[in-house]
Amino acid sequence: MSCVFCAVVSGDAPAVRIFEDDDYLAFLDIRPFTRGHTLVVPKQHFVDLTDTPAATLAGMLAVGQRVARAARASGLHADGNNLAINDGKAAFQSVFHIHLHVVPRRSGDKLSFAKGMLVRRDPDRERTGELLRAAVARLDAAAPD
Amino acid sequence: MSCVFCAVVSGDAPAVRIFEDDDYLAFLDIRPFTRGHTLVVPKQHFVDLTDTPAATLAGMLAVGQRVARAARASGLHADGNNLAINDGKAAFQSVFHIHLHVVPRRSGDKLSFAKGMLVRRDPDRERTGELLRAAVARLDAAAPD
Repeated sequence: MSCVFCAVVSGDAPAVRIFEDDDYLAFLDIRPFTRGHTLVVPKQHFVDLTDTPAATLAGMLAVGQRVARAARASGLHADGNNLAINDGKAAFQSVFHIHLHVVPRRSGDKLSFAKGMLVRRDPDRERTGELLRAAVARLDAAAPD
Repeated sequence: MSCVFCAVVSGDAPAVRIFEDDDYLAFLDIRPFTRGHTLVVPKQHFVDLTDTPAATLAGMLAVGQRVARAARASGLHADGNNLAINDGKAAFQSVFHIHLHVVPRRSGDKLSFAKGMLVRRDPDRERTGELLRAAVARLDAAAPD
């Protein structure tokens, strides 16, 4: 097993988990652009947009939407989010297990966002995870599937 | 009617169209980061991730995936793609009709990509549209829904 995201899914590699169901896992990026930067992956291994079924992409984005909504409602006080899929090495994909980035943003954070892209560090990941997890759980309780 | 993407959908505003079905429209961004930079929108007006139904996002991404695959197979010779949804003004959303960016990338294009983010101009949009439309049509003929 050489895929780091498969290792995260199986629990062999550590991660701060935000949300999980039978098919998807959301966890904090270890090198975040902003506080709460989350990756959503399908548990099944696919590489990029050339091999991932559209239905799998749909489920991945649905989880990403829930995380994005939670980021706005959370103690992270996000005002918006950048969602991104990097499809292929030419597009800066670095782990070849397809994933969706959810990057919480705050109004007027342009400079700290630029700094975050260089520093890529969260000094309190555990607390960030707690805030985001709690917000996902509140939203799911308010509007269950 | 003050939404520019609703005007594109209705045909009241011009656009180089790449793909269209009953529910979605894909067209070239008029200020492209790279050649073939395409926007996918639902024809129905939604604003961002706070109000767009998950099923609508799923369909939007499925069209984006087809465009991304087509970019690789097209005369644009893309080696990958960045897909992005900017959710909210804080995340650089500038048109408040939800849309998915599909930005074709080529291996080693980092410098021209950076330049493209500043210049944002395609000197031959019509030809770009032809190349991408032809590739979408070929893929759809090879693997119809």
